[in-house]
Amino acid sequence: MKVVLASQSPRRVEYLRRLQIPFHQKAVEADESLLEGESPRVYVRRVSALKAAKAAQDESGSPLLVVAADTVVWQEGEFLFKPCNVEEARKMLSRLSGSSHQVFSGITLRLRERGRESSLSGVAVTTVFFSSLGEEEIDRYIRSGEPLDKAGAYGIQGLGGLFVPKIRGSYSNVVGFPLELFYRLLRRMKIDLWSLRRE
Amino acid sequence: MKVVLASQSPRRVEYLRRLQIPFHQKAVEADESLLEGESPRVYVRRVSALKAAKAAQDESGSPLLVVAADTVVWQEGEFLFKPCNVEEARKMLSRLSGSSHQVFSGITLRLRERGRESSLSGVAVTTVFFSSLGEEEIDRYIRSGEPLDKAGAYGIQGLGGLFVPKIRGSYSNVVGFPLELFYRLLRRMKIDLWSLRRE
Repeated sequence: MKVVLASQSPRRVEYLRRLQIPFHQKAVEADESLLEGESPRVYVRRVSALKAAKAAQDESGSPLLVVAADTVVWQEGEFLFKPCNVEEARKMLSRLSGSSHQVFSGITLRLRERGRESSLSGVAVTTVFFSSLGEEEIDRYIRSGEPLDKAGAYGIQGLGGLFVPKIRGSYSNVVGFPLELFYRLLRRMKIDLWSLRRE
Repeated sequence: MKVVLASQSPRRVEYLRRLQIPFHQKAVEADESLLEGESPRVYVRRVSALKAAKAAQDESGSPLLVVAADTVVWQEGEFLFKPCNVEEARKMLSRLSGSSHQVFSGITLRLRERGRESSLSGVAVTTVFFSSLGEEEIDRYIRSGEPLDKAGAYGIQGLGGLFVPKIRGSYSNVVGFPLELFYRLLRRMKIDLWSLRRE
């Protein structure tokens, strides 16, 4: 079975690699704009499904499994995307400081087999608690360069981990690829992860 | 300031590297036997302090910062150490299946400066929830080779992450080096992590 990861995120690539599943990586252009009033749960599910459908369109082989994911940071009713500049990163980090927020990831698996296509999506949610950060600390962190390409302006797998005493939920979800959800969706599609692996 | 990590754990080494703190690695032989009736909290604190003291003994330089850690898995009043063989790994995984357990890490920082030595220890605790595992799944996981050198017979940063829908507490603690605790202890010792870094 050919496995395609419809993502450019180095962290998702790293997770699939660590599982030792051979896969092809594919960049997809999907319209990621928010619909009015859309909740984070509905949004990440819809966008991950959109990415999976786009990636499947361009692939002719069978059997084929497309894996797509989308992750957002959400605090008090607002989405925190990737900061556009240092000023925006500083604002986001001040907002996260001393409080908690949620991370939502949607995963969609799209399977093509014997001429049929089926799709299954799921969502994981994790609450992340941040320490109280001083202005100097935020500046030092921004100067490290880590915040600028991350949703919510932090990376929990890097220096950002220094600021997180506690999470409640899946950790890999916060990094962008909820492993246990992925495994669960595979099982529901009757796909055996262990035989996908190159042992 | 010379930084010494008194540990052979590749995961602790990896964490310090990711923080971009230059350090020397040192293997220490400490007596890690449990005292009668000792709680996991007291145990990891004591053993991490013991490791730090041992490592400091052999170092003559100043200023010197020794970092030591110890991690244990604990479930329903029992310690789960590294399994000695496949049979023990299978027993541990069956025990963890479908329930929760605790991971405790102690960190000790030992600082030598201007002829004085001081030491500070702290403990982090995380609750880890495991999915229900089938026998076949446990066998496949054991065959991957991952469980055998890990306390509790799993590695959350590898395939073991597939079995963990949720944690409550620090993730890096489960891996063996609680980052936020490390940062907090440094601050309490008036050591600025950001200036230790090689930027």
